[in-house]
Amino acid sequence: IVNVSSCFLQGILQRLDAGEIVIGDGGFVFALEKRGYVKAGPWTPEATVEHPEAVRQLHREFLRAGSNVLQTFTFYASEDKLENRGNYVAEKISCQKVNEAACDIAREVANEGDALVAGGVSQTPSYLSCKDKAEVKAAFRKQLDVFMKKNVDFLIAEYFEHVEEAVWAVEVLKESGKPVAATMCIGPEGDMHGVPPGQCAVQLVKAGASIVGVNCHFDPDTSLETVKLMKEGLQAANLKAHLMSQPLAFHTPDCGKQGFIDLPEFPFGLEPRIVTRWDIQKYARKAYDLGIRYIGGCCGFEPYHIRAIAEELAPERGFLPEASEKHGSWGDSLGMHTKPWVRARARKEYWENLKPASGRPYCPSMSKPDGWGVTKGARELMQQKEATSEQQLKELFQKQKF
Amino acid sequence: IVNVSSCFLQGILQRLDAGEIVIGDGGFVFALEKRGYVKAGPWTPEATVEHPEAVRQLHREFLRAGSNVLQTFTFYASEDKLENRGNYVAEKISCQKVNEAACDIAREVANEGDALVAGGVSQTPSYLSCKDKAEVKAAFRKQLDVFMKKNVDFLIAEYFEHVEEAVWAVEVLKESGKPVAATMCIGPEGDMHGVPPGQCAVQLVKAGASIVGVNCHFDPDTSLETVKLMKEGLQAANLKAHLMSQPLAFHTPDCGKQGFIDLPEFPFGLEPRIVTRWDIQKYARKAYDLGIRYIGGCCGFEPYHIRAIAEELAPERGFLPEASEKHGSWGDSLGMHTKPWVRARARKEYWENLKPASGRPYCPSMSKPDGWGVTKGARELMQQKEATSEQQLKELFQKQKF
Amino acid sequence: IVNVSSCFLQGILQRLDAGEIVIGDGGFVFALEKRGYVKAGPWTPEATVEHPEAVRQLHREFLRAGSNVLQTFTFYASEDKLENRGNYVAEKISCQKVNEAACDIAREVANEGDALVAGGVSQTPSYLSCKDKAEVKAAFRKQLDVFMKKNVDFLIAEYFEHVEEAVWAVEVLKESGKPVAATMCIGPEGDMHGVPPGQCAVQLVKAGASIVGVNCHFDPDTSLETVKLMKEGLQAANLKAHLMSQPLAFHTPDCGKQGFIDLPEFPFGLEPRIVTRWDIQKYARKAYDLGIRYIGGCCGFEPYHIRAIAEELAPERGFLPEASEKHGSWGDSLGMHTKPWVRARARKEYWENLKPASGRPYCPSMSKPDGWGVTKGARELMQQKEATSEQQLKELFQKQKF
Amino acid sequence: IVNVSSCFLQGILQRLDAGEIVIGDGGFVFALEKRGYVKAGPWTPEATVEHPEAVRQLHREFLRAGSNVLQTFTFYASEDKLENRGNYVAEKISCQKVNEAACDIAREVANEGDALVAGGVSQTPSYLSCKDKAEVKAAFRKQLDVFMKKNVDFLIAEYFEHVEEAVWAVEVLKESGKPVAATMCIGPEGDMHGVPPGQCAVQLVKAGASIVGVNCHFDPDTSLETVKLMKEGLQAANLKAHLMSQPLAFHTPDCGKQGFIDLPEFPFGLEPRIVTRWDIQKYARKAYDLGIRYIGGCCGFEPYHIRAIAEELAPERGFLPEASEKHGSWGDSLGMHTKPWVRARARKEYWENLKPASGRPYCPSMSKPDGWGVTKGARELMQQKEATSEQQLKELFQKQKF
Repeated sequence: IVNVSSCFLQGILQRLDAGEIVIGDGGFVFALEKRGYVKAGPWTPEATVEHPEAVRQLHREFLRAGSNVLQTFTFYASEDKLENRGNYVAEKISCQKVNEAACDIAREVANEGDALVAGGVSQTPSYLSCKDKAEVKAAFRKQLDVFMKKNVDFLIAEYFEHVEEAVWAVEVLKESGKPVAATMCIGPEGDMHGVPPGQCAVQLVKAGASIVGVNCHFDPDTSLETVKLMKEGLQAANLKAHLMSQPLAFHTPDCGKQGFIDLPEFPFGLEPRIVTRWDIQKYARKAYDLGIRYIGGCCGFEPYHIRAIAEELAPERGFLPEASEKHGSWGDSLGMHTKPWVRARARKEYWENLKPASGRPYCPSMSKPDGWGVTKGARELMQQKEATSEQQLKELFQKQKF
Repeated sequence: IVNVSSCFLQGILQRLDAGEIVIGDGGFVFALEKRGYVKAGPWTPEATVEHPEAVRQLHREFLRAGSNVLQTFTFYASEDKLENRGNYVAEKISCQKVNEAACDIAREVANEGDALVAGGVSQTPSYLSCKDKAEVKAAFRKQLDVFMKKNVDFLIAEYFEHVEEAVWAVEVLKESGKPVAATMCIGPEGDMHGVPPGQCAVQLVKAGASIVGVNCHFDPDTSLETVKLMKEGLQAANLKAHLMSQPLAFHTPDCGKQGFIDLPEFPFGLEPRIVTRWDIQKYARKAYDLGIRYIGGCCGFEPYHIRAIAEELAPERGFLPEASEKHGSWGDSLGMHTKPWVRARARKEYWENLKPASGRPYCPSMSKPDGWGVTKGARELMQQKEATSEQQLKELFQKQKF
Repeated sequence: IVNVSSCFLQGILQRLDAGEIVIGDGGFVFALEKRGYVKAGPWTPEATVEHPEAVRQLHREFLRAGSNVLQTFTFYASEDKLENRGNYVAEKISCQKVNEAACDIAREVANEGDALVAGGVSQTPSYLSCKDKAEVKAAFRKQLDVFMKKNVDFLIAEYFEHVEEAVWAVEVLKESGKPVAATMCIGPEGDMHGVPPGQCAVQLVKAGASIVGVNCHFDPDTSLETVKLMKEGLQAANLKAHLMSQPLAFHTPDCGKQGFIDLPEFPFGLEPRIVTRWDIQKYARKAYDLGIRYIGGCCGFEPYHIRAIAEELAPERGFLPEASEKHGSWGDSLGMHTKPWVRARARKEYWENLKPASGRPYCPSMSKPDGWGVTKGARELMQQKEATSEQQLKELFQKQKF
Repeated sequence: IVNVSSCFLQGILQRLDAGEIVIGDGGFVFALEKRGYVKAGPWTPEATVEHPEAVRQLHREFLRAGSNVLQTFTFYASEDKLENRGNYVAEKISCQKVNEAACDIAREVANEGDALVAGGVSQTPSYLSCKDKAEVKAAFRKQLDVFMKKNVDFLIAEYFEHVEEAVWAVEVLKESGKPVAATMCIGPEGDMHGVPPGQCAVQLVKAGASIVGVNCHFDPDTSLETVKLMKEGLQAANLKAHLMSQPLAFHTPDCGKQGFIDLPEFPFGLEPRIVTRWDIQKYARKAYDLGIRYIGGCCGFEPYHIRAIAEELAPERGFLPEASEKHGSWGDSLGMHTKPWVRARARKEYWENLKPASGRPYCPSMSKPDGWGVTKGARELMQQKEATSEQQLKELFQKQKF
């Protein structure tokens, strides 16, 4: 039963309305950073122009792993962002070129299989530096113009820490007439101004989003908690929307309100936190049971994690992804191993119950996030945007850390 | 100082003899398993024929990360192995086609930069099933024929658990007149018949290898211990050879004589053991200090790990790899982050001293390898190849495990 | 400044009203279990009759460590409890004898220093088996009769999981005219019927308790959270009472609503969780800052833990306990060690920041409590006291555990 | 079968020669430090004079737990040591008084049961400061005079890091005509001058020791490895002696040559390393299987650990210790607990297989010992006793630590 997928290409809403499970793709900036094409820190997607073959190959791997949606690699590709951080690129690459190339590559690969192309926008530096609504909306509109020209299938506003900005994004994207999904990078405590997840979901749906949920910043378990709160908020408000989750592929039970950014391991020491394919199967099942039907991933998700979603939900969907031809369900490809104790691992119970060791006996299992004790002294100072010297802040943190 | 590499292409021995550092590439079977092109268990490389674009892209990423050698993706590509395990492939792909395609792809990418192509052979099922020397050598010769036809630059015999078979491989490869490197997948305890590393090295050099060392099965620290023993063995025997190391990118302080295969996490739960780029910088420095000049990686090594070798040794080599244009040395690309506590991570001391948490408080830090207590009862039974039922073996292990 | 304690003996309320810090004692059943005089499971105090010298010595150690209150060793010494579990004692020892001996020993040692004697009652099997209020109160009154005859200084109702029973206990104890303290063994989630801590405190104070707080079941941090909720509850209700905390000396961040009983390590594998003296100094400071003035401990607290409270609060109290003559503050007795690196540990910063290793690399850092997933199915069954077979329950738990 | 012990009191050698198991006692300095009577750092036993009731009670608890030998509490009670460190004691207590009181207390308690009294000497500051043989021997002879006057049953030379000094101690003790046991605080790497354990044992037996083994500094597993090497050394030399082990009750797989002193947790942060009673049962069994017949403990051993030895070996010995009346074998006293999941812990398999969590997710499981990298630079400097400033040493260590 390999790849006998639903054969006729339908839109995202038709699929979800029909009760189909839609599988998203994984995180491009983290995967391409490890492959050598994205710089951590800026995290900008100029690789669409500089190294299209690398972006194309990653899209292809996700498609093969089971993704039904290929997101254009346009994360942080707003003009202000590219300018803000892009000065390390030798020859300046225009915002428009980056976005156009992203659309072309995604469409090329999508045509190789049963996938939709989604154009994506994300939070802007303009919002954080207090520019006004018109200016922020103009930035989104610039990207939207490209998406319209390239005729993407639907739109995603993702990675927003402030629901206000997310609502603005949705309002702009809705102008297109295409379906809009909106995900925030928040946890159960809500957005950075304290708006709880349920209320965020309500505002996003009222602004026009047909699909709402979360992406990035938190691990699968935490993200599902947040989506659950969104679901409850919508129910309480008598609103209807499809639910979506694209969490990290890192275990982050110990992170604070702003997620994995504040963990001391971010972004170059996260390896021991990477989730296994079995963790993802549990996540996919839990997401499904919660009523989520758009299930994908964000930073840390590699093609084999996406395949794990597709394999876990194969009974419901009726087919396996192409890449499963290179994967035995629950480890059964080990059944031919020469060592009997390795053969004994070719079964579900084994992998389901394994508590994997880190091989790092000198490391702890949890970290104290930086910026933790910042609630009182430092956080107030920062929010007031007073002329606090960085040195003062550091001293404050250090005093409060333990 | 990006990519001002030694400009004229020289052979492997000229480079090493001249005191150059040669950077190897990373592990193909693990990387391509996660990308969806190799099946764990068989671990065979038919992707060279089925999905050449995926193999090509991985070669390209290693090249860009700094690899001076591209190994043909011919691991486990001997005819007996492909037949033995290859029956899951729908249309049978011949051994010759797999090997030829591997050579073509490697050469194509090598021509894009300053890299040599190395043809590789590895241990065979024939040896383990007690076939005779002639038969085993014939299997190697079959692969060698392809390597000669495709004119690879040099040859590597790698992943041997028994020095006897490795010596046979070296003898065959030497027939070509090309330089031969030989690495074994052993730890400080020596090969599976108890031949200590120093003695293995002596035998390999006497058989004709110009470069000797280890690959796979153990983590960087353990592998360097083994190479050190090889070095001492060669010195004691007054033999000269270049040293080479291509370890795992997994922390395995807790594994037994046969390495990570026996760890309960092998092969689908190894994530928390993945080494960071900083671990690799420490490894590269330690390898260099030990006198090793051919420094690469095996299973678990992704392009960013290879880049870490190149960055650590940039002062000695005088240049950085291409992929460093997307990497700030020791995290300095974080210097522009908006949060002061993330900016504070843009320095060497931070990453050098970080003890990364796993986010897995319900998991231990070390595992008991399977097959541990097998020394007496079970191992003897197995070696005698008696008609012991698997059930009996399992009971024996379970009694001895704790 | 050794032992220049407040020289004239005053009652508990005079002390607390005057703003004094009152230091409690530690946990008798756990300490005496390890010394060989109490049986885990029953946890009954017949040692007061069988081995008075052992009980006396432990009282003396706590006194010397700084305790201002010696609690009679009458935990679980109600008649129903002794009968219920006491059948393993060869010669039946009467409830009255156990309680009387406990009072005599405590008074004898208290007279050796500046300490008050507190008579203690704790929850009864009668309550759990649904006997009526009159019967439960009669059990408390029986113990109170002894306390009055022996003229203890004040009374403590401790270790109650249900506020209803605690209120009954306070009502009985108040009949004596002596001051009454009441502590519950609950966490931030409240009592076993879901009454939140703030409300528990209000009910206890209304019933006549002058001092309220928590004891046992949770670690210092969790217990202080609970007392904070009690404090807030009292403030909201405009009630005044002194606050008291006597937590475990075990780290239990991972336990559920019913505390450490449900942890898989209870009671014979708790060693790796034992808190250090430095943990206790942090606890004492935090308790003090929270406004708690009756600060002691429960299970796991050994004399050196009590001394740590006295040492941390020595600046506020103006004196050190007698046992500090055998203790250098913050490790300064190591200043004479022969090894320079051990001498280097003779300072506060060292011990304050140490993250102590367990030496147990094959063990995790947190446990899943048993009976965790019991909320829905099993817990309801149990509360309904239906004829559920134990087998059914176990199956339910196992299904829900992961 | 409680306490039906071998009814007639025989000497230590008769017992061991007859094949009896002799159970030692636990560690006094650590137990009494926690009870408030011994100062960490000096670790001297003036409590025998200052607080005889505390010392007596601890002896009694060990006796009750199953100890067949009560060691006089004369650790570090040589005159030079008491003078060296004793200056913090207000009124100077003479060496003779400390030793005499120790003998009297031990004998008083031994007479309450079936126990022998052993007089003990340990390494001296004189030896470390390079005084000559005559002077060191004089120090031992001074303690021996007291032991002879008080007529102890036999003698133990314990806690020696240098076999040379241990031999001198044995020679002095042998002058008494009483049986002599000798234990060193060394690990498998041997004494501080590099003499391997087997050779140490040979020298001690040749000097006159009838019983040899190890005490302190290492955990049970490591200590048994060392005794095994001693046993092999004696066999190779065709010598006969009884074997003895009194290890730490702390897990120390991560310590270096000088044992737990160098661990960063020593001595005030060792709590998470404390072994459980089940660990001790495994130790007792392993010691017995190795042929050791004098089995006890050292620092960290509390009465319940000694009881665990007696319980594990009850089948061989035919009786349980008195304190087992307060202990159900393998947790069976939990069989009456109200919660079914706690009742389910009343069995051997449960406790035998439990991997206890530390409740400390921010702590690692292993530590790097201080003074580790000292081998080359710093250690040589120290051994030469050159005028190296402490600052220089610290810098050296810090450079080498990671």
